[in-house]
Amino acid sequence: MQPNNLVIWSNDDFRPDQSSQQQLLVDGVGPHRLLQFERHDPRSIDALAAADIAYGAPDPNAVVTSNRLRWIHLNSAGYTPFDTQQIKQAFQAQNKILTTSSAVYSEPCAQHLLAMMLTLARQIPAALDSQRRDCAWPMKELRAASRLLDGQTVVLLGYGAIARRLIELLRPFNLSVIAVRTRIEGDEDVTVVETSKVDSCLAHADHLVNTLPANDETKNFLDGGRLRSLKPGAIVYNIGRGTTLDASALNELLREGHIAAAYLDVTDPEPLPPDHPLWQTPNCFITPHTGGGHSNEKERQIKHFLENLRRFECGEPLLNRVV
Amino acid sequence: MQPNNLVIWSNDDFRPDQSSQQQLLVDGVGPHRLLQFERHDPRSIDALAAADIAYGAPDPNAVVTSNRLRWIHLNSAGYTPFDTQQIKQAFQAQNKILTTSSAVYSEPCAQHLLAMMLTLARQIPAALDSQRRDCAWPMKELRAASRLLDGQTVVLLGYGAIARRLIELLRPFNLSVIAVRTRIEGDEDVTVVETSKVDSCLAHADHLVNTLPANDETKNFLDGGRLRSLKPGAIVYNIGRGTTLDASALNELLREGHIAAAYLDVTDPEPLPPDHPLWQTPNCFITPHTGGGHSNEKERQIKHFLENLRRFECGEPLLNRVV
Repeated sequence: MQPNNLVIWSNDDFRPDQSSQQQLLVDGVGPHRLLQFERHDPRSIDALAAADIAYGAPDPNAVVTSNRLRWIHLNSAGYTPFDTQQIKQAFQAQNKILTTSSAVYSEPCAQHLLAMMLTLARQIPAALDSQRRDCAWPMKELRAASRLLDGQTVVLLGYGAIARRLIELLRPFNLSVIAVRTRIEGDEDVTVVETSKVDSCLAHADHLVNTLPANDETKNFLDGGRLRSLKPGAIVYNIGRGTTLDASALNELLREGHIAAAYLDVTDPEPLPPDHPLWQTPNCFITPHTGGGHSNEKERQIKHFLENLRRFECGEPLLNRVV
Repeated sequence: MQPNNLVIWSNDDFRPDQSSQQQLLVDGVGPHRLLQFERHDPRSIDALAAADIAYGAPDPNAVVTSNRLRWIHLNSAGYTPFDTQQIKQAFQAQNKILTTSSAVYSEPCAQHLLAMMLTLARQIPAALDSQRRDCAWPMKELRAASRLLDGQTVVLLGYGAIARRLIELLRPFNLSVIAVRTRIEGDEDVTVVETSKVDSCLAHADHLVNTLPANDETKNFLDGGRLRSLKPGAIVYNIGRGTTLDASALNELLREGHIAAAYLDVTDPEPLPPDHPLWQTPNCFITPHTGGGHSNEKERQIKHFLENLRRFECGEPLLNRVV
């Protein structure tokens, strides 16, 4: 059991209409002392040194210079600023724990991906364009272009929480799933291919779903060569990070028709500048990094942190632990 | 066993690029004699009298005046022209069988409905509108407006093949399903309410999914009173028939905001005239009766008929039998 007078540092931002969510955090930390800062308050850096736990999005260098901090819980699914050898080694040497809010975002991201897959298969963007344009009734063309997901092959780049939840959502459909993962661990319940052998499965993909995080190994992972080796007519989805994909090669292959369509929720840079050519490519559909968003996001973030706090107090394994 | 020299009448239309599907039909009927007509060929009416089986969309009155016809298999999911007391009684008196292609269309329609539900929950139409308009990056607004399906209540009007398949697709989501059915049969695997008590569950619906067919009982079933008794903020989906819903009341409630959004795949009339007010109502999304369409529709229609022909030959129960 942990003592009940820990100091919890937070730089989680609350909008004026989120007072009930803020109260949920205040009430939930119970007897511990909560130090609350706005996201970019410069005073928050020094305060980190006096805290046992940090919640939100602390600065990685300030975290590793604090001797007292024992556990850092990020309110994001990604942890790119902490994803370097130097920071991870410092965490291990100092016996610090790093957890993320991956469980908060896997559900909306998986639902967003399935929305993208079905929307495109059912020609809904084309129907809505027609509604905006001339209220015509292109029934025959759109019916002929509509597809079933049945019998298709989905290749998942990355086998994290989003990919695993998407696999559950896809289970009632009659399709094949191949997951690409750094190392085969034996706990996968779909066909799995090691990242080093990814090129062997790209030619089979009707749908290539990219959930890769941003780090040194994933930068430009989907380069022109890999994109060109996709099955002709494949659809590319990116809900990972924009840096993992060569946008200019993607645009060229979309315009050639080799790739039938792309659905991007992440780009490089973000926001994608209004004059970027991908915006105008007819078969490229872009949502502004909304995959993880949900109306009750703040509430779910806090409940996830509080569940991990309960586990931390009881010495139970923490959820979404990275280091 | 049936004799292998039956006469099979067909008025299924084939486009010039569908010769392989037509060949599938010709090869599939094997030793039987196949009389093929174009959909509206007037000679097809007289030919019905000399057939044992009719496949496609025959005229109901010509069917009941034929003494020889024993089995009619429609290539549509709906059977509105046959859905009258007079025709059904004639079928029963003459020992004629009526089957539909409902199994061909339940899969695309269920996938279309889930596409509609997820697309709207994930604010994809708003993102695509933004892409078409100004390539802005309304990330914060759209994330806050995005929703999870978790915890929501889906009321299904109608418990036919589409609704049952949708229930399977919804199973991995954490939501509640209530099905409204003419009579409770005891074989339902969700909460079920008799049609006569539908008003008791409308106030609970976050999503009202209408798959009702067109007939005398369903005409204007969703009238202004029922639509107004929906839970404020509900979303209405119609993939049944346009005549089952009061479009003018729906439009008023959409504009008031009592109904948050509507997703219509069917309207009354069809095509919906370009000057119909529903086209311009901002929270009304219309697809031109594409729910059942799929690129391999003709192939799946023929395979479904051939499976029923095999069953007919062997005296096994036919699929999608109505009478």
